[in-house]
Amino acid sequence: MSANKAKDNKGTTNHTINEDKLDTNVSIDMEAPEFRDFAKSMVDYIAEYLENIRDRRVLADVKPGYLRPLIPDAAPEKPDTWQEVMSDIERVIMPGVTHWHSPKFHAYFPTANSYPAIVADMLSGAIACIGFSWIASPACTELEVVMLDWLGKMIGLPKEFLACSGGKGGGVIQGTASEATLVGLLGAKAKKIQQVKKQHPDWTDDMIVSKLVGYNSAQAHSSVERAGLLGGVKMHSVQADEKNSLRGEALEAAIKEDLEKGLIPFYAVITLGTTNSCAFDRLDECGAVCNKYNVWAHVDAAYAGSAFICPEYRHLMKGIETADSFNFNPHKWMLVNFDCSAMWLKDPTWLVNAFNVDPLYLRHEMQGSAPDYRHWQIPLGRRFRALKLWFVLRLYGVENLQAHIRRHCKFAQEFAALCRADDRFEIVGDVNMGLVCFRLKGANELSENLLKLINGRGNIHMVPSKIRDVYFIRMALCSRFTKSEDMVYSWNEVSAAADEMLKK
Amino acid sequence: MSANKAKDNKGTTNHTINEDKLDTNVSIDMEAPEFRDFAKSMVDYIAEYLENIRDRRVLADVKPGYLRPLIPDAAPEKPDTWQEVMSDIERVIMPGVTHWHSPKFHAYFPTANSYPAIVADMLSGAIACIGFSWIASPACTELEVVMLDWLGKMIGLPKEFLACSGGKGGGVIQGTASEATLVGLLGAKAKKIQQVKKQHPDWTDDMIVSKLVGYNSAQAHSSVERAGLLGGVKMHSVQADEKNSLRGEALEAAIKEDLEKGLIPFYAVITLGTTNSCAFDRLDECGAVCNKYNVWAHVDAAYAGSAFICPEYRHLMKGIETADSFNFNPHKWMLVNFDCSAMWLKDPTWLVNAFNVDPLYLRHEMQGSAPDYRHWQIPLGRRFRALKLWFVLRLYGVENLQAHIRRHCKFAQEFAALCRADDRFEIVGDVNMGLVCFRLKGANELSENLLKLINGRGNIHMVPSKIRDVYFIRMALCSRFTKSEDMVYSWNEVSAAADEMLKK
Repeated sequence: MSANKAKDNKGTTNHTINEDKLDTNVSIDMEAPEFRDFAKSMVDYIAEYLENIRDRRVLADVKPGYLRPLIPDAAPEKPDTWQEVMSDIERVIMPGVTHWHSPKFHAYFPTANSYPAIVADMLSGAIACIGFSWIASPACTELEVVMLDWLGKMIGLPKEFLACSGGKGGGVIQGTASEATLVGLLGAKAKKIQQVKKQHPDWTDDMIVSKLVGYNSAQAHSSVERAGLLGGVKMHSVQADEKNSLRGEALEAAIKEDLEKGLIPFYAVITLGTTNSCAFDRLDECGAVCNKYNVWAHVDAAYAGSAFICPEYRHLMKGIETADSFNFNPHKWMLVNFDCSAMWLKDPTWLVNAFNVDPLYLRHEMQGSAPDYRHWQIPLGRRFRALKLWFVLRLYGVENLQAHIRRHCKFAQEFAALCRADDRFEIVGDVNMGLVCFRLKGANELSENLLKLINGRGNIHMVPSKIRDVYFIRMALCSRFTKSEDMVYSWNEVSAAADEMLKK
Repeated sequence: MSANKAKDNKGTTNHTINEDKLDTNVSIDMEAPEFRDFAKSMVDYIAEYLENIRDRRVLADVKPGYLRPLIPDAAPEKPDTWQEVMSDIERVIMPGVTHWHSPKFHAYFPTANSYPAIVADMLSGAIACIGFSWIASPACTELEVVMLDWLGKMIGLPKEFLACSGGKGGGVIQGTASEATLVGLLGAKAKKIQQVKKQHPDWTDDMIVSKLVGYNSAQAHSSVERAGLLGGVKMHSVQADEKNSLRGEALEAAIKEDLEKGLIPFYAVITLGTTNSCAFDRLDECGAVCNKYNVWAHVDAAYAGSAFICPEYRHLMKGIETADSFNFNPHKWMLVNFDCSAMWLKDPTWLVNAFNVDPLYLRHEMQGSAPDYRHWQIPLGRRFRALKLWFVLRLYGVENLQAHIRRHCKFAQEFAALCRADDRFEIVGDVNMGLVCFRLKGANELSENLLKLINGRGNIHMVPSKIRDVYFIRMALCSRFTKSEDMVYSWNEVSAAADEMLKK
């Protein structure tokens, strides 16, 4: 059906629908028995897809615009069958999928995928409540409060962050770490404006905002810079040390420099596990500096935070008691499907009060006795996401989640050992967590060309980064299906690509 | 297990894990056959739940804090079984669920729930790609581009908004209407700053931002005010007319007033279907005023936009060609599960350029030939949400989606007729779409007490609103299971509560 025809159809459809003639006894919905067949067929498809994901080409091999010619250019007037839809998955969708859960996928950082999380999301889709306030579905809010306590205990967060301590603190599920960084920034902004106004009652908000300055390591994720843009405040990017860690001294020097300029330091993002190289800012040093200068310390442990469920990695979060907010993504490395970004705040009231618009239709009688999470986030609506946290924590148990982290860390060391044994290559920096940064010795161009060749072959997929003009390739452990043999396979791909390139 | 014990357990766990001793051949994951059983059991549970949802008490009957004592206070070390988890759904979760999809739920506005969308989300959870750029999974981006074209055609959007027109325009799925309003505001802000800087090269960004002013009807959703707070700009709330519609004349007067003060008008939110009373701002008038004063016109049709798939309602979006951005939520009234908020922009480059932070690890060779949706939204990560739009459009077909809208509108008229026939009651304003606003004649207190009684009985659930000091009760059509009999049931509940109250 052409677009024009579709438009004409609709343009000329009966404009004077007589609602009395609507037969409301005819079902317009898929019936339950059909749903059972369809959904169970999808369950089987999913199991097949994931168990055999290793056999698919990891990187989609299509050109931009591939999909449009494969489907009609307008929605059908009458329903298709679910069997038609099922068969279109392989025809239309799969050719354009980059398989993030293949053991051959080493790009970016992992995003989680597990059977318990998928099943939990099915339930969430069926209940389909919008948990913007407690009354809108008490279970949705309350399970989230308790799950964030479970999770906080698992990583050893100080009790000031936990709701079960009975203080102000507590956790919330955000969609993404970018949102957590922005939410932290907005809370810090509201707090600082109020503090400054007490000292300078004649200053306007605009005057104060124009003086605010936040801090991050030059190695921080791009979303931190973006939070500054979105929040309309300056961000001061501070150089990291030779280990790519932000140090307290450098942060303090930057703060002093800005104070001398008459600016007002208000927020600092301390990254534990950078995207570039999985470097850890020195929270023990930076947190103390933040406290000294009354700057809100936000900890972004989006990827590496999951590792803190293993006690042997907790030394990397030393100083956590100095933080005002802490965030990590179970949807990255802890087997809870996207989106589930866990954030804790010692004092959420700054945030709640700053953006509290409270129309009558959202008020309820129990207000104040449980969090109304709509005040803790950017959007109003929110899904029942605590279910997938609950299912994953229960159906893996802490032990297996720890084993998952430890295995990825071990595989990274195995890959690094293979790389070190080939003297054409060098490892860049330390191998931290499940990430190996490596390159061909010599000019950047060599590694750039190598990566093009690797991704062109399409058997494995990696992305690059660059620090202080040194270009390197990132090999991230991403799949829960990964085995030691996959490290050998991936290394052989790298090595074969190098052979091919160096032969030319 | 007590919290302390859990903490001790973890605090004293072996801190010197020897990774070489990790047995990486032992599976830590649920195996595929177990997943098949578990997921199919969940499919049956979901079908049972939804088909019998009418029998449950619609409003959760629990007190704040009900859930915590029902579950352990820390995550288990060893896995529970999926059967244990399944049986906890009725014990732990369901008592605290407010059943948004019950025909007895009339609060807020509908949120969507359909079998095709649930199954699509299962697939999305299995693929679990993060579609922040084209290369990260081309299908995820491309299906979204085409689905937004399908949807745009279904509601008769001018071709300037559609990607298939070959111009700059196109659509994107946002999480919520709140985010769409904020994204529109941020795009408008970036555009205006650039325009003003051309005229006044010596003005700083901070100076310009302090003069910016946006507009909305006093009847607009609370998220519009919040977008102003988040975006750090003034919002001017303009009085609506006696039909609760924002008129062009009032908007123009407000703009002129601000210009005289030296302010810079930059953004206006025009609501089609307000949350308070489903009133429609006069887009035909307001859009022209926006164009005249070079103010970005954003149309928020979060709820009512779905009705524009029926040609007989499109007169309410007259003037759409004057808008810069348009948003409605298929996740409200078009049977696509949350979150799926469709937004179209005539010129997304303002947004893309304003917040484009482009680190090496997110770049790819095809950049520019397809949208990289990370630049179109607040978060970086994004789920494969176009799948549920595709499944719903195909498995309902346009005809059945239209019938869904028309049925809800018809049921609203049926409820209103019952209300009108009882002379203790009055309808407030017009009955628009699937919303009936009504009250007991006389003092607000009467209707306030009535609503308390209705929600206390818990057989149906409604929320109130208030316009110009007149308090009223909102009866929104929310469920796809609703039949004419449900209108009689709900009315009888209202009437019985009124009897009970007036007897006292």
